[in-house]
Amino acid sequence: MRLLLLSSAPGILQEWRAAVARAAPGIEVHGPDEEVPAAAFDAALVFAPPRGRLRRYPNLKIIFSLGAGVEQLIADPEFPDVPLVRLMSAAKQRLMNQWVLYAVLRFHRGFDRFEELQRAGRWEWQGSGPGAAERCVSVLGLGDLGRASAELLRDQGFQVRGWSRSPRSIDGVHCLHGPAGLQQLLPDTDILVCLLPLTAATRGLLNAELFARLPRGAAVVNAGRGQQLVLEDLRAALDSGHLRGAMLDVTDPEPLPPGHPLWQHPHLVITPHMASYMPHESAIPSLLDNYQRVLEGRELLHLVDRARGY
Amino acid sequence: MRLLLLSSAPGILQEWRAAVARAAPGIEVHGPDEEVPAAAFDAALVFAPPRGRLRRYPNLKIIFSLGAGVEQLIADPEFPDVPLVRLMSAAKQRLMNQWVLYAVLRFHRGFDRFEELQRAGRWEWQGSGPGAAERCVSVLGLGDLGRASAELLRDQGFQVRGWSRSPRSIDGVHCLHGPAGLQQLLPDTDILVCLLPLTAATRGLLNAELFARLPRGAAVVNAGRGQQLVLEDLRAALDSGHLRGAMLDVTDPEPLPPGHPLWQHPHLVITPHMASYMPHESAIPSLLDNYQRVLEGRELLHLVDRARGY
Repeated sequence: MRLLLLSSAPGILQEWRAAVARAAPGIEVHGPDEEVPAAAFDAALVFAPPRGRLRRYPNLKIIFSLGAGVEQLIADPEFPDVPLVRLMSAAKQRLMNQWVLYAVLRFHRGFDRFEELQRAGRWEWQGSGPGAAERCVSVLGLGDLGRASAELLRDQGFQVRGWSRSPRSIDGVHCLHGPAGLQQLLPDTDILVCLLPLTAATRGLLNAELFARLPRGAAVVNAGRGQQLVLEDLRAALDSGHLRGAMLDVTDPEPLPPGHPLWQHPHLVITPHMASYMPHESAIPSLLDNYQRVLEGRELLHLVDRARGY
Repeated sequence: MRLLLLSSAPGILQEWRAAVARAAPGIEVHGPDEEVPAAAFDAALVFAPPRGRLRRYPNLKIIFSLGAGVEQLIADPEFPDVPLVRLMSAAKQRLMNQWVLYAVLRFHRGFDRFEELQRAGRWEWQGSGPGAAERCVSVLGLGDLGRASAELLRDQGFQVRGWSRSPRSIDGVHCLHGPAGLQQLLPDTDILVCLLPLTAATRGLLNAELFARLPRGAAVVNAGRGQQLVLEDLRAALDSGHLRGAMLDVTDPEPLPPGHPLWQHPHLVITPHMASYMPHESAIPSLLDNYQRVLEGRELLHLVDRARGY
């Protein structure tokens, strides 16, 4: 395989080349600026490539997305008509799991309140709150990352609900689906975790109307896509005290610009889209497996359905 | 059983009475101010009772400690000569596990740094750090709480070491013991978690000398006892940049007084001794079991060795 790497992240070509050299020495990895004819590439690994850019490579058999979110790729009308699959690995799931668990524990155990008390120099404990079994955490989006997070939260004793577009089933997780399922789940949700893909149906989903359906004191956690959450609505719900707090790994606009007032909101934690990423080494088995599958005409794993949008 | 409840925590008598009524209706629970003759109590459940106070009850067969730390009880020269056992439950372990995992994730994933960047209004990610498998977390103290935390951290993929006074063995955890074991473990430790009991040997253990043996950039987490950590030494190690940060659930003095300068230290999180507590209901099986054991002269669980100090 001759693999094209298209990503603007600094150093990533060297890192991938080193990782591939260790794991699969038969594969050549090249950047777009190296002297390799465009026709020589049979696979591409991409993160946010410029629109139309992939048209230059006529012999691609498969395109791998480094990111879990593929909405920008499929929005490109010139995107080649070859299978698009996302890379996935247990290591990537573990990273998201850590971020989600940290966010859930923050609200579950009141670390947000203790930070405020610390700033005020006050040693004060109001006594025990609900245990994990009495805390309802709802995970929106049950793809590879959402499912793994729901399972971890379940294993940590939380009362977990899952929500997705179409029906899903996860042991020990009460799964709901579709618009009616979402409406049903909101009023009992203490902590809402969004790990949805960005589609026409999820754009702006986390808005004033949805927040109002959550019980007073609920928390909102988003590591899906910034465009799913209306920041102004979140701010209003935090300021009114309806929501206890929020933690966001994604924003709209993203990056959140310097001077944006939400940086300083006392009930909001913002992290710079670091919740989950693909440790290169961990992605290689999935990459090789899918490449073999495309050669043999077998079913691809983590294949993107462009009509569905994820 | 007629159970005496001695604790200054507000509302605790009512809560225990209700929990016991649901779980074990045969047991009477009374506070010290109720009209029950002192000789009628055959068991006591205590949290920080006044020194000498338990001498008034001549027929106690067993004393239960609500807290995991018993150093104040055994320091009382008038403490009755009856078995002292600590209450323990999976629910209490789970609470400590949550606190410890939150603290470890905070440093492992750099949430401490992202909070600083947020205050500065900066969206900035330095790129991926070590994975859990490359992060060495050392748990000092392998009692019921320390062991449970070590196992959870192991299950979450961290490279876990455990340390205790005498040899212990935990699957998948590299266990060391004694003073030499501690010296051996420190230079490779990224995150040090203290869940030790307070004894003559652990008082002041977390001091300048120990911090200096940790690698630069290590973090220190204490949910053992405040007197185990020398706050001034911690401050110096944080200020010099040798330690990346710390998270404390216990302090000396405790409560940390208003106006104490460490409240405002930017690399320190302080929580008010809330990491772990005993959900009443969860303690009742352990309480009933040990009471039955004392009646039948069988071995007690979680028995305190007063000579050893825990």
